[in-house]
Amino acid sequence: MPIAPSVRLGRNVAIHHPDLVNLYGCVVGDDTKIGAFVEIQKNATIGRLCKISSHTFVCEGVSIEDEVFVGHGVMFINDRLPRATANAGLQTEADWTVVPTRVKRGASIGSGAVIMCGVTIGERALVGAGAVVTHDVPPDAVVAGVPARVMAREASR
Amino acid sequence: MPIAPSVRLGRNVAIHHPDLVNLYGCVVGDDTKIGAFVEIQKNATIGRLCKISSHTFVCEGVSIEDEVFVGHGVMFINDRLPRATANAGLQTEADWTVVPTRVKRGASIGSGAVIMCGVTIGERALVGAGAVVTHDVPPDAVVAGVPARVMAREASR
Amino acid sequence: MPIAPSVRLGRNVAIHHPDLVNLYGCVVGDDTKIGAFVEIQKNATIGRLCKISSHTFVCEGVSIEDEVFVGHGVMFINDRLPRATANAGLQTEADWTVVPTRVKRGASIGSGAVIMCGVTIGERALVGAGAVVTHDVPPDAVVAGVPARVMAREASR
Repeated sequence: MPIAPSVRLGRNVAIHHPDLVNLYGCVVGDDTKIGAFVEIQKNATIGRLCKISSHTFVCEGVSIEDEVFVGHGVMFINDRLPRATANAGLQTEADWTVVPTRVKRGASIGSGAVIMCGVTIGERALVGAGAVVTHDVPPDAVVAGVPARVMAREASR
Repeated sequence: MPIAPSVRLGRNVAIHHPDLVNLYGCVVGDDTKIGAFVEIQKNATIGRLCKISSHTFVCEGVSIEDEVFVGHGVMFINDRLPRATANAGLQTEADWTVVPTRVKRGASIGSGAVIMCGVTIGERALVGAGAVVTHDVPPDAVVAGVPARVMAREASR
Repeated sequence: MPIAPSVRLGRNVAIHHPDLVNLYGCVVGDDTKIGAFVEIQKNATIGRLCKISSHTFVCEGVSIEDEVFVGHGVMFINDRLPRATANAGLQTEADWTVVPTRVKRGASIGSGAVIMCGVTIGERALVGAGAVVTHDVPPDAVVAGVPARVMAREASR
């Protein structure tokens, strides 16, 4: 079941290939569009009028507000020091704390970007393609690079 | 329909997992091989004798000539300033101009590379794995890094 | 057949979406968990108690020991100078030598990392998200960046 019954979809959500996504336990707002090969985990929230492009991974703890563009192949993170095991078994949810990430209204995240956990990407900010975001991004700022640095205080319109 | 009827496939195109790709409105040349979890959008053109490796996204406006290697998880781009919305609705095709990208004959693009729109990657050039290409790549050159810079004028054979 | 008959799975391997992976000719150890949109090629070996997260590509020649965490969208490589063609046809296995890569026990690889072929990632080492690893990583070290450099000699616990 690539779209699990636990998913709460708003009205008019466009998922053209429901057999090629993996969504469970998440909330997706009205009029949002989700591409192929996207995984969205439980306790992730996507707002209204967003585009979540193909090959993107949205993990638990990520909250995306309305009108956000997420490019292709974007990876979110919720664990700063991931390990496979704890106490001689695979780690379970009891073994780590989800570090939340927020993407605020109208922001855009370029394709191939990696978003470290614990950051807030400000309203209308623009994250360049391939950037690795390790700190908060101010509203309206343009960031790029590895690690991402502010390239411009205000995105051109 | 992961391979839409609008796709024009040449002879002897190898797609081992047609149920795990998303191809629509594109042209793919003879003898080309396409991996799993690949999306190729409408108005993208792939030449003959190419390898398009798994997890790669080829967007509208990308033109790939013959004998090109595209690694795994490569992301092409066609919009320099992507936004989710315009005029209080999701953006549609009327709201942006596709910026074309060309990959010329015999070039190779390493896995995980991100190719900004508007560039030309020259004949036989080699783009290093994980590079973010923001400018044209001369023929035969080797580029790498974020942003990609010329590492060598001529790829070793 | 997204999990080919040639795959040798250990006991208690968790693959929640067998229809959304592409595994062939590989070995996967007991109690390992494999996410959606993962491809693992022939002659790749995954140990016990590993997590191979969504969107990751593990190629031929990669050997992952026990208790290794591989994040989302991680790309392994086995060819330093990939080309699509040789002798006027698509390259076949006869045309290149697989360069092996080793990930040792207890290591963790962050999401979006790219691992160049021929490297060894040491025991318990931590590769930062989005890093491009081009050299060996010492045991216990933390590396990050493009190309990846040592950030700390010992990962915090």
